[in-house]
Amino acid sequence: MCELLGMSANVPTDICFSFTGLMHRDGRTGPHRDGWGITFYEDRGFRTFKDPMPCHQSPIARLVQDVPIKSRAVIGHIRQANRGHVALENTHPFTREQWGSFWTFAHNGQLSGYEERLMPGKHRPVGDTDSEAAFCWLLNELDQKYPRKPANMKAMFQYAGELCSRLNDFGICNMLLSDGRYLLAYCSTSLHWITRRAPFGKARLIDEDIVIDFHQETTPHDIVTVITTLPLTRDEQWRAISPRHYRLFHYGECIAEQDI
Amino acid sequence: MCELLGMSANVPTDICFSFTGLMHRDGRTGPHRDGWGITFYEDRGFRTFKDPMPCHQSPIARLVQDVPIKSRAVIGHIRQANRGHVALENTHPFTREQWGSFWTFAHNGQLSGYEERLMPGKHRPVGDTDSEAAFCWLLNELDQKYPRKPANMKAMFQYAGELCSRLNDFGICNMLLSDGRYLLAYCSTSLHWITRRAPFGKARLIDEDIVIDFHQETTPHDIVTVITTLPLTRDEQWRAISPRHYRLFHYGECIAEQDI
Repeated sequence: MCELLGMSANVPTDICFSFTGLMHRDGRTGPHRDGWGITFYEDRGFRTFKDPMPCHQSPIARLVQDVPIKSRAVIGHIRQANRGHVALENTHPFTREQWGSFWTFAHNGQLSGYEERLMPGKHRPVGDTDSEAAFCWLLNELDQKYPRKPANMKAMFQYAGELCSRLNDFGICNMLLSDGRYLLAYCSTSLHWITRRAPFGKARLIDEDIVIDFHQETTPHDIVTVITTLPLTRDEQWRAISPRHYRLFHYGECIAEQDI
Repeated sequence: MCELLGMSANVPTDICFSFTGLMHRDGRTGPHRDGWGITFYEDRGFRTFKDPMPCHQSPIARLVQDVPIKSRAVIGHIRQANRGHVALENTHPFTREQWGSFWTFAHNGQLSGYEERLMPGKHRPVGDTDSEAAFCWLLNELDQKYPRKPANMKAMFQYAGELCSRLNDFGICNMLLSDGRYLLAYCSTSLHWITRRAPFGKARLIDEDIVIDFHQETTPHDIVTVITTLPLTRDEQWRAISPRHYRLFHYGECIAEQDI
């Protein structure tokens, strides 16, 4: 299993605190030694840092911790390889251009028997992971249904959520998908989220003895949602997404959830 | 005008020395203050570092100088904005997936009157630069001619060189294009290259008082080509590519040039 990290916010926000918590699950407090990656959107552009080595050994991971990069949408991932060898091209997140925007995807889980069923189309995998094959298939299906950029993004993401359910039929498929404005979180087995807004309090990382006072780091109008495989902090109320359900976030707010 | 930097090598090679030379053209010894970027291939994967700020102010540029990233194909760029505002999505190099590989492109120059003529297809620009529009058009034309990955890559690059000439009709278009194995350098007005191989000597950067002894940094079998807008070192014989001509490099060796 891998660890996922997502953030959706209404103002450019620094995710160092959460990334620090996640980093310590890379082989010290967790078994994930096969690489890590994180994608930060800045308006329509993005920057990705990734490494096929554990992040506590990576100078690039130290940079991500030390240089606050502010973003409204972030997807991060720590990998324990199952399908696909340990290599840069197999390291999440994956990004592709679709409808003139960059789409980013990360996956936690493992798929079986998908090879013949997830046929490549416009988007083709470069590496040999089940995850990148799933991402390309998902974008190809969206491209087929919406040859032009959809006017109703909420409806499009509802369809993307249905496609995630179809992927989940091949195994375990916790997923994060973003275009820099929206963030879709699909829970197969484990995904948790929290929305922080005024009045902001303090929180302590579970994996490391670090406390942050969000009140010092925010303004009263900030709305910041963090999504992870398992809660990152004590003293806060994280919510689980129900298995086989999704939630859609837009600039920090949950704007849609699947009917239960 | 912007500054281009390309490298093609037969073994994973550290480009810190050349990047250091280029960095000093970002507003100290040159007028290029509007961002910088560099893409390193590692086998089929790549990593890109970029910033819409001058690189002598950028902590990410310092990381690229300090952490030796070894690669067989590199494309770097320092930008002076003309078309497109200063933003991450407008910062070179640009990368897209085509035929299951990642293709990377950087451009120096300026195009005019292209908007109606470079129609988008499968690949669409995300930002608003002439350069990204040119890159997407180039890939779309290649995709149309070669719906499947071409068996004869040299012939495909010859066609890509012809497409570069058509782009050059819209203005100035010095370009670097790579899939991680091949590197195409198209000269509109200014591109220089050097292939270093045994016996290796010493070289001194033009822009900074730094000397490198390549003999200390290499093995006798290394073949490393560096391509730049203007020569980076004294005491070495750089060759100019003739205007409106291309050269194709493959793992360090020049394997094709346009008939003159």
